[in-house]
Amino acid sequence: MPASSITHLPITKVSRVVSTEALDALAIEEPLEIRLEHGTKENRQVQNISVTMRTPGHDAELALGFLFTEGIIQKQEDIAKIDHCFIACAENKENVIQVTLSEETIPNLRNTERNFYTTSSCGVCGKGSINAIRTVSAYDHQPQIDNFINAELLHQLPAILSRHQKVFADTGGLHASALFTSTGELLLVREDVGRHNALDKLIGAALNENWLPLNKHILLLSGRASFELVQKAAMAGITIIAAVGAPSSLAVQLAEEFNITLIGFLRNERFNIYTTAHRILITEHETTH
Amino acid sequence: MPASSITHLPITKVSRVVSTEALDALAIEEPLEIRLEHGTKENRQVQNISVTMRTPGHDAELALGFLFTEGIIQKQEDIAKIDHCFIACAENKENVIQVTLSEETIPNLRNTERNFYTTSSCGVCGKGSINAIRTVSAYDHQPQIDNFINAELLHQLPAILSRHQKVFADTGGLHASALFTSTGELLLVREDVGRHNALDKLIGAALNENWLPLNKHILLLSGRASFELVQKAAMAGITIIAAVGAPSSLAVQLAEEFNITLIGFLRNERFNIYTTAHRILITEHETTH
Repeated sequence: MPASSITHLPITKVSRVVSTEALDALAIEEPLEIRLEHGTKENRQVQNISVTMRTPGHDAELALGFLFTEGIIQKQEDIAKIDHCFIACAENKENVIQVTLSEETIPNLRNTERNFYTTSSCGVCGKGSINAIRTVSAYDHQPQIDNFINAELLHQLPAILSRHQKVFADTGGLHASALFTSTGELLLVREDVGRHNALDKLIGAALNENWLPLNKHILLLSGRASFELVQKAAMAGITIIAAVGAPSSLAVQLAEEFNITLIGFLRNERFNIYTTAHRILITEHETTH
Repeated sequence: MPASSITHLPITKVSRVVSTEALDALAIEEPLEIRLEHGTKENRQVQNISVTMRTPGHDAELALGFLFTEGIIQKQEDIAKIDHCFIACAENKENVIQVTLSEETIPNLRNTERNFYTTSSCGVCGKGSINAIRTVSAYDHQPQIDNFINAELLHQLPAILSRHQKVFADTGGLHASALFTSTGELLLVREDVGRHNALDKLIGAALNENWLPLNKHILLLSGRASFELVQKAAMAGITIIAAVGAPSSLAVQLAEEFNITLIGFLRNERFNIYTTAHRILITEHETTH
């Protein structure tokens, strides 16, 4: 994580009724505009795709991951180049990034106007949202993926992530996404004030490594598992998601439909398995009577 | 919070290497589409404004709060009615809500296409984002608001919120926004899987009570304070924001510009004051040498 992800400000610290002046570390949040250049040689166009509030750093991965998880591009090779646009304003010099597609690539911009949620003929509902993802995901349904994980290994992952976050942990303001192998080796960590951005950065980095589909890996989320995060994971072919926080109802439904193992509350040597539990190897099983 | 905000699912609970079957409570997440009906009697039109992933309950307040904090409407009286649209699909029967404006009201839809962030002539940057809010906020700059709070009172607020959340605390998946008087009386709590939705519901409820501007109140956020949350609070004229989690850099900048007192890490009888510290009354001050 680059140094520009954190800033220091003078603050007043209060403990009970006593105040002291101090310098505090804060996670930087700044807007990033993602622009897409596409079209034939004769008819190139540049289009604004999204503005997201993000922590600076890994912006090219964020843009790549976002375009991929939104279904706008299908593969890393669709991209000719990704560059920051340096506009004539000192304060925004890194806040616009332009993704240039190769001439052969036709982006799927159908989804960008209103997000996935309303592309279903059924209207706006959870089932419609899930079906909409199915139409754009290259890795739907992976029933036979042999990605088995020991419970003991899962318990260790949050501590491994914490050790790698320790420099930035003092801001207390960053969400993390981490990618592990099935034997618990940490491959990638990305952080951001927005949890969706942290995951887009991670998936963008994995695309650059040509690692997709990520069906032999474990995705660890530092917070809660929402529909949006499971949706992005499903687009990358992830089969095991472990969240330190709670999942939502629709996150569980989507995981179920995509044969993703979804784990929540992974902390203090405990966790809950919400879907596709057979991938988690557990030595003892107690039945409640 | 209505019962439909929570669902129960069978899960596998794992403690170390022992698993048991259990029933778990989850926060419901479902899409809500907000539609706006506006125009003259001769030329009425219905327009889709937004789709947000939310926890069902208080949908009308969410729609009202969203339209207000986005600057699309200016006051509660702009609204003629708000109703769910019951569409012919059993699963989405409460997922579309239509806000009908009075005939005199012209909505400000300039902001909806791309959000606030790009309306500034400067392009995309933090300062531009803040200036864009200034142009639509009715309550910019409140230098002389006498809203003073004792530090002792602030320490008590998270526990008061926890007592009111206890029924729903078992999902672990809901963000809360709470509104207190300057003497620590809890007026409103709203919860949602999305923190921006919890705040929009709260501000929508306050609009219905005709309480705005909320410049004699304290807003308590159960998690982190992002730019988006401070932006919504600024639109409602809030002068004191206390977050249990960390603020971002841009949240602090926005609070500074709008003379909002921003407090972070409010827990365990400690907190940090990031901006406009004079409103917090503290008995002892230690100087570090």
